Amino acid sequence: MEINITFPDGAVRQYPQGSTAMDIALSISEGLARNVLAAKVNNQVWDATRPITTDATLQLLTWKDDEGKSTYWHSSAHLMAEAIEATFPGAKFAIGPPIDRGFYYDIDFGDLHFSSDHFEQLEKKMMELAKQENAYIRKEVSKADAIQYFTEKGDPYKVELLQELEDGQITFYEQGGFVDLCRGPHIPHTGHIKSVKLLNLAGAYWRGNEKNKQLTRIYGITFPKKSELDEYLTMIEEAKKRDHRKLGKELEIYTFDDDVGPGLPLWLPNGAAIIEALEAFAKKTEREAGYERVKSPHIAKESMYLKSGHLPYYADSMFPPMEVDGEKYYLKAMNCPHHHKIFRALPKTYRDLPLRLAEYGTCYRYEQSGELFGLMRVRSLQMNDAHIYCTEAQFEDEFKAVNALYLKYFAKFGIDKYVMRFSKHDPAKLGQKYIDMPELWVKTENMVRKVLQGMDVKFVEVEDEAAFYGPKIDIQVWSAIGREFTLATNQVDFAQADRFDLSYINEKNEKERPIIIHRAPLSTHERFIGFLLEHYAGNLPTWLAPKQVIVLPISDKYQEYALEVVKFLKNLDIRASIDSRSEKAGKKIRDAEIAKIPYMLIVGEKEATEGAVSVRKHGGADLGSMELQQFADIIVDETRK
Amino acid sequence: MEINITFPDGAVRQYPQGSTAMDIALSISEGLARNVLAAKVNNQVWDATRPITTDATLQLLTWKDDEGKSTYWHSSAHLMAEAIEATFPGAKFAIGPPIDRGFYYDIDFGDLHFSSDHFEQLEKKMMELAKQENAYIRKEVSKADAIQYFTEKGDPYKVELLQELEDGQITFYEQGGFVDLCRGPHIPHTGHIKSVKLLNLAGAYWRGNEKNKQLTRIYGITFPKKSELDEYLTMIEEAKKRDHRKLGKELEIYTFDDDVGPGLPLWLPNGAAIIEALEAFAKKTEREAGYERVKSPHIAKESMYLKSGHLPYYADSMFPPMEVDGEKYYLKAMNCPHHHKIFRALPKTYRDLPLRLAEYGTCYRYEQSGELFGLMRVRSLQMNDAHIYCTEAQFEDEFKAVNALYLKYFAKFGIDKYVMRFSKHDPAKLGQKYIDMPELWVKTENMVRKVLQGMDVKFVEVEDEAAFYGPKIDIQVWSAIGREFTLATNQVDFAQADRFDLSYINEKNEKERPIIIHRAPLSTHERFIGFLLEHYAGNLPTWLAPKQVIVLPISDKYQEYALEVVKFLKNLDIRASIDSRSEKAGKKIRDAEIAKIPYMLIVGEKEATEGAVSVRKHGGADLGSMELQQFADIIVDETRK
Repeated sequence: MEINITFPDGAVRQYPQGSTAMDIALSISEGLARNVLAAKVNNQVWDATRPITTDATLQLLTWKDDEGKSTYWHSSAHLMAEAIEATFPGAKFAIGPPIDRGFYYDIDFGDLHFSSDHFEQLEKKMMELAKQENAYIRKEVSKADAIQYFTEKGDPYKVELLQELEDGQITFYEQGGFVDLCRGPHIPHTGHIKSVKLLNLAGAYWRGNEKNKQLTRIYGITFPKKSELDEYLTMIEEAKKRDHRKLGKELEIYTFDDDVGPGLPLWLPNGAAIIEALEAFAKKTEREAGYERVKSPHIAKESMYLKSGHLPYYADSMFPPMEVDGEKYYLKAMNCPHHHKIFRALPKTYRDLPLRLAEYGTCYRYEQSGELFGLMRVRSLQMNDAHIYCTEAQFEDEFKAVNALYLKYFAKFGIDKYVMRFSKHDPAKLGQKYIDMPELWVKTENMVRKVLQGMDVKFVEVEDEAAFYGPKIDIQVWSAIGREFTLATNQVDFAQADRFDLSYINEKNEKERPIIIHRAPLSTHERFIGFLLEHYAGNLPTWLAPKQVIVLPISDKYQEYALEVVKFLKNLDIRASIDSRSEKAGKKIRDAEIAKIPYMLIVGEKEATEGAVSVRKHGGADLGSMELQQFADIIVDETRK
Repeated sequence: MEINITFPDGAVRQYPQGSTAMDIALSISEGLARNVLAAKVNNQVWDATRPITTDATLQLLTWKDDEGKSTYWHSSAHLMAEAIEATFPGAKFAIGPPIDRGFYYDIDFGDLHFSSDHFEQLEKKMMELAKQENAYIRKEVSKADAIQYFTEKGDPYKVELLQELEDGQITFYEQGGFVDLCRGPHIPHTGHIKSVKLLNLAGAYWRGNEKNKQLTRIYGITFPKKSELDEYLTMIEEAKKRDHRKLGKELEIYTFDDDVGPGLPLWLPNGAAIIEALEAFAKKTEREAGYERVKSPHIAKESMYLKSGHLPYYADSMFPPMEVDGEKYYLKAMNCPHHHKIFRALPKTYRDLPLRLAEYGTCYRYEQSGELFGLMRVRSLQMNDAHIYCTEAQFEDEFKAVNALYLKYFAKFGIDKYVMRFSKHDPAKLGQKYIDMPELWVKTENMVRKVLQGMDVKFVEVEDEAAFYGPKIDIQVWSAIGREFTLATNQVDFAQADRFDLSYINEKNEKERPIIIHRAPLSTHERFIGFLLEHYAGNLPTWLAPKQVIVLPISDKYQEYALEVVKFLKNLDIRASIDSRSEKAGKKIRDAEIAKIPYMLIVGEKEATEGAVSVRKHGGADLGSMELQQFADIIVDETRK
């Protein structure tokens, strides 16, 4: 008997019943088959070696796919467990999942003090076992048999896990001699794993409960090529150097204070200068794009958020209310309701649309203190926020213009790797997770897809991740060293206009609801500056650098001339300052290098006499001596670009 | 027997015991005596006709003094009551105090329906009685006699008031035949009152309690010259037209919304444009003056305000706390503690001082909802705030520079009438109202006085109005139509550095506390924009105008050219827009006049062909047709100035 296999491009082909994804891959090409790690069968990730018995859709998964990587790292966790069992008999195993980058396994080593000194030994063992190309074999087992197996083996954690599972749904996976309780799926065999690095150790309570025993969590990562591991290790090494928390401190960008509170950064003058530069740039860019600025308070009454629907559902992410005059006031966690109120303050006609209201509004969101992380997870958010109110006919152009703005911003910041994640609704969840307007969903999603297809942008479609009130686009970008950040969003909203009774008079003199686009292309200052610090390794381009020029008099005698130079540059809106310490020029240069100031101007006798400056760029390039005006032309040109 | 009278200039002269201030004034000059309304005897305001029996300091009060005016209006309230008693027998009197501008009296008219139709009749009667030049005569009475008098007269309100007073401290004042229970003081006689205007009526519950009877409150004002009344009436007429609430609505500057909350303005695009223009100007000015910008969150923990001393004493003026992770967080009501934390974030030496930290920080203060008034009394305050940390040696220069900055700002906004109120401590209240550092108070006040004397500024010294932590200067300014506003403050602070443990390493390598100057020369955006709207009657100078240019195509045919003109101007950072409605040019011009847009550019066939614009200024001046570039030069020059 034959089954119909439908491929991602829509092609349908017949295969014998019981064919595996691997069989099918082989039927296409041996090269392809060599790279297959798993497969998506009817939208579920399966072992590539598992027989398919019914008609199905099929997508082969390789290292290029997120699910391919995830399966690969899951299998690597099993490989590590196998190596541990071989090396440290008696070790007991808890759980060992894949994570975003790599995998871990929680192990009970009993009396053995396991340390990172054991890493090398274990890595060797893993590579030895990997080379055996042992297949990962799936076995369905009864609950009783499974419990018996792990009881005999003496693995109480697995037994505890098994007790909570339903009979008939339990599978073991075996590779080499190692058997694990596991839902799978796994890669075909260990031979795919060509390089391994155990990264670090942590304590982890069994089941996350501090009353339980603390286990040893071993983190590791594997790759199908040795060169990829090397790249990865270089990247994390570089990422450590570029950590925005480290750079934020060294470059005096921001600080936290116990009396202010966690997750609430105080921006030091250097940080505020970056903020000012970003805002000036965004305001100019957005003014040219036809945005108008507004300004709204940081609080509003409870009734506002009941109207918007944020209360009660979103209450956990908001700060608790303040009671004033018998009414509850909330710190705003988003700017939209305030902007809707501004839209509503004056009557609108089709002539007023599209109306693009922009604000650097600071919002406050409650994050668990354990989730807070430098500038990346904070409680105060200075958002480059805007809401566009438009007619249905204008929607396509407006949505396109927003995406174009994103690309313009990306280019400005040298972000060349990005992907737009187009998150759609799930028709099965209308009325629950998604507002119940089925036709509008389809129509809007089609409009969004059309815009994306019409532009030369990379995008993926994601099911069931839309916002409550409409489809959205999240933009993932990669920093210069390949770290991933989710920065910006662009959302369509066809619900809030109704909730806030927003309308305009159309050309037929009828009342109509506008469509709303929410957008925040530069994210929050917090997250974006955190990203930029890593992206540029702290070497911000001159227009963004908090200190653009430092003047270094080689002795106190030239202090006066140095001050003249500073004044001259300041008048041109250049952020210039002087290092007036009585230090040697060499020391001043070293300190300016550490502070990552783009330009150092060394001035001594010759410069003072000639009205010149000796220009040294950050990083060491010597531009030589030139007239002050000539240098001014260079830097003004560079910063105005 | 003689007593020693000390005059404000320090001169001491002898007078017979029992001399009155009027006697003393007469001894100086008859002209002076004619103008004396009351006197300050040992710092208490007295009747000019009351005998002085001990050595005393004396200041004669005339119409030029606030206390002189206040006494005058208090006496005018009595005059109005006398006129009411004569005109409407049986009217019962509650209380009748002077107010900021004029006076009122709360009256129970019984069955009579008193309306503003009665104003003229009453004004005439008042002038008739005033001309009699009846003296205001002070009488000490016993409580029993006083109660008997008003019981017989049938005035239950006075009886109720009397019951709460202590015997031996009760005085009556009588003028003409009218007797009132009153602490005084009063002017010598009714003849000083040369013109009167009753202004309006309001309902007022007896003792402000809505369970009591509602009385009729009559507001009035009087002047010693008819011409002053005319000026005043013209001013309030003009003030009505210039009312920032009226203009704020007409010019679409700001709005309030019930779901946001009272006292929390939402700034519409026009308002935000003014804010942006003001901020850009202030940031540039202050950058040139050596300020550095910082940015701080809008909340902080309770511990911050316990440290600063704002809690518990200032709690009533703050929003109530939010409880997060078991700790209380407050919306900031001032920026200083955050700035102190920023100062403290990095170690400082004398080389880092003076450090001038500036921020447009939005603060939140609780005001009773009844006190809220347009933009003048609000709950959200966007402050042009800064704190200067300096050494004692630097203080004088820094304080002077701040005052110079005020004058620079005043000149920019055409504020030519102002006075600096130098508020000092009261040595008797050290340790209570004022921090207990007597020597520092004297030293600092002397430093402040020296700075003020050394500059060409108008200032008055005010006793017992300093801040808790140091002397301060409040600046009162008068708008173009003579209305008074308190806009800016400049405070010295020698206490907070200690509370926040702020220090720097001085040149001797010792730890030392900085002196702190708090300053906010442009007040809050709310108050300042409110002031500017009135000051300019909404006709903001071009650099501040939210819409600077409107292009008016005389028909749809010239729409395209009009858009080119807009684009050209926008590229020069000019806030230009188009009136694209299919209206007649006349209508478009009228609407642009109402919107108070500084420049109208009318474009038709001729202009489109020649690349020209016909320029009309707000108010009607016709600048004729010119090349677009020529107009651009004019407006760019005007806005950059």
